Amino acid sequence: MSGNTDIEGLIDLMARLPGLGPRSARRAVLHLIRKRGQLLSPLAQAMLTVSETARECLNCGNVGTTDICDICENNGRANGQLCVVEDVSDLWAMERSGVFRGRYHVLGGTLSALNGVGPDDLRIPQLRDRIDAEAVTEVILALNATIDGQTTAHYIADQLEGRALLTSLAQGVPIGGELDYLDDGTITAALNARKPI
Amino acid sequence: MSGNTDIEGLIDLMARLPGLGPRSARRAVLHLIRKRGQLLSPLAQAMLTVSETARECLNCGNVGTTDICDICENNGRANGQLCVVEDVSDLWAMERSGVFRGRYHVLGGTLSALNGVGPDDLRIPQLRDRIDAEAVTEVILALNATIDGQTTAHYIADQLEGRALLTSLAQGVPIGGELDYLDDGTITAALNARKPI
Ligand SMILES: [Zn+2]
Ligand SMILES: [Zn+2]
Repeated sequence: MSGNTDIEGLIDLMARLPGLGPRSARRAVLHLIRKRGQLLSPLAQAMLTVSETARECLNCGNVGTTDICDICENNGRANGQLCVVEDVSDLWAMERSGVFRGRYHVLGGTLSALNGVGPDDLRIPQLRDRIDAEAVTEVILALNATIDGQTTAHYIADQLEGRALLTSLAQGVPIGGELDYLDDGTITAALNARKPI
Repeated sequence: MSGNTDIEGLIDLMARLPGLGPRSARRAVLHLIRKRGQLLSPLAQAMLTVSETARECLNCGNVGTTDICDICENNGRANGQLCVVEDVSDLWAMERSGVFRGRYHVLGGTLSALNGVGPDDLRIPQLRDRIDAEAVTEVILALNATIDGQTTAHYIADQLEGRALLTSLAQGVPIGGELDYLDDGTITAALNARKPI
């Protein structure tokens, strides 16, 4: 405890970040106070900016600072390929690999009977609309190799059958693995070796 | 990569926090963007406040939002005991244990021939001044049980010999251990069993 209300409040908020507990939040705040000129003040400003401007792309679900994200706005990426991912972190992981040049569709999760997540809770209706609207010829299902991820992939494959070539990431994605934890090379290999469903 | 400059900038700053690498910084920022109303915006405000008001106590080196910290201002804690710690995180750890009712002196590190840290690089001259100014009768050296911590304790003991009772935390502090990693009970036991040097 610092005994100071403002500093305590900051520690409590920091401790709510994923990966930081109370101890690491205290250490982070002390570090920030020591570097208040070089780090704390710029970080506060960056957070303020992002909190005011960040939003989800109305088309694909990526996060950015415009209603339609840079990838959706980029006509060079309207190549008929649509890569379906669970979360924005997966989209970012794909982008880091640099191998995919089409567009994305972020579902916002997976179907889950257990958690009561149905198709309308995800961005699945919007996915159907985009097939025609954007003349999509191939849908790459880049979902995590978990049970829920694969259930969701099969549901989408059923829904879109006959409307586009359906492929999935192939070799390289380990059983139970999540995209965001893979190295770029593995993602590249899996995308290059994708196979029809 | 998010492809968005503001969001990328925020991720880069977050990755400079201790305990967060690039991946956990990305996850933290996505979490913040999802919870921008409940978490990101209050966190930005709290950081802004602390970046504008945080300072080191001119007397003891604790951090707070006033020139003299709450502990130094509290006359109820002018009981003649002064607890010397290496860092503010150690002071906070002592305060969490709730057992110490005197005041603190934060050195700001340890003596280190290797890193070229001498007495004047730490708050050691100010410590000497406080013995008389605050009628200190006991100096508790609560330094980490590392080689540099113990070297520093011996140097301070030499400097203050005959001017106050010198004690150190006793049982409970493991060899090579750091205060900030100890549970409150261990700190309490070590303080209660302190012994003259
Ligand atoms: Zn988009
Ligand atoms: Zn103070």
